Amino acid sequence: MIVGEKYALTAETTLEFAETVARARTELETEGFGVLTEIDVQATLVKKLGVEMEPYLILGACIPTFARQALELEPELGVLLPCNVAVYQRGERTFVSAVDAERMLSIVGNEDLTPVAAEVRSRLARVVERVSQAPA
Amino acid sequence: MIVGEKYALTAETTLEFAETVARARTELETEGFGVLTEIDVQATLVKKLGVEMEPYLILGACIPTFARQALELEPELGVLLPCNVAVYQRGERTFVSAVDAERMLSIVGNEDLTPVAAEVRSRLARVVERVSQAPA
Repeated sequence: MIVGEKYALTAETTLEFAETVARARTELETEGFGVLTEIDVQATLVKKLGVEMEPYLILGACIPTFARQALELEPELGVLLPCNVAVYQRGERTFVSAVDAERMLSIVGNEDLTPVAAEVRSRLARVVERVSQAPA
Repeated sequence: MIVGEKYALTAETTLEFAETVARARTELETEGFGVLTEIDVQATLVKKLGVEMEPYLILGACIPTFARQALELEPELGVLLPCNVAVYQRGERTFVSAVDAERMLSIVGNEDLTPVAAEVRSRLARVVERVSQAPA
C-alpha cells in the first residue's frame, strides 16, 4: 500500500533490504524501465565522510522511448532524469520509494510532457505496489 | 551567462562537447561535488532504440555532507538525488545545464531544506558560469 504521496510514492515492504532491491529491479524491468545508475548511499557516506547510516540505495530508471520524447520536447530535461527508485531501511523496517514523476515534471511547466509524466508515474506506482505486496 | 532559469541553470559554452564535460567535472570538484553517476544518453539511445541523437551526457553530482543532512530531514529525498549537470550539443552549439536545486526541492515542501537547497543552487550556478566562461 502506498503510504506517502507528497513527491514520492512510498510503501513499506515485508522483504529484507537486499531482497527488496532485487524485487524492485525485476518490477522495473517488467514495466519497461532500464536501470541506468545505482548509488549505494550508505557506502558512499562511509567512504566520503566516515559516517554510518542504514542501508540506502538509489536506482536511476528510464524508459528509453519516453526519455527520447521528453528530451525532444525539452532539451534541458536531462537535469531531471532518470526517475529514481530508492530502497532504504529504518530500524527493522524496509521501504521502497519512487519519485512522483508528475509532481517532479510539474516544475518544467510544459504541458506536452503531461501524458508521458502521467504514464511514468502509473508505472512507478505499480512497481512500488508490487514490491510492497511481494510475500517475504 | 546563464540564459535559462526555469528549472535548470543553462549557459552556452565556447568549448567543444568533450572539453565542456571535462571542465564541468573540474568545476564540480572545485565546488565540493563528487560525481556519482554518469549517463551517456546518446550511447544509451543508440543501444536501446537504435536511434541517433546529438551528444548528451548527464553527470549526477552530490556534496556528501549536504546529502546526509538532507536525508536526515527527509528520508525519501533519495528519489531526487543526486543533482544533475547535463552537457549537450545542438548543431554547432554546446550547452551546460544544472538543475535548479531550489526549484526541484520546492516540491518537497520542507522548509528545513531551504538553506541546503539555496547553497547547492549557488554552487551549481557558479559551475555553469565558470564552464561557460572558459576560453576555448
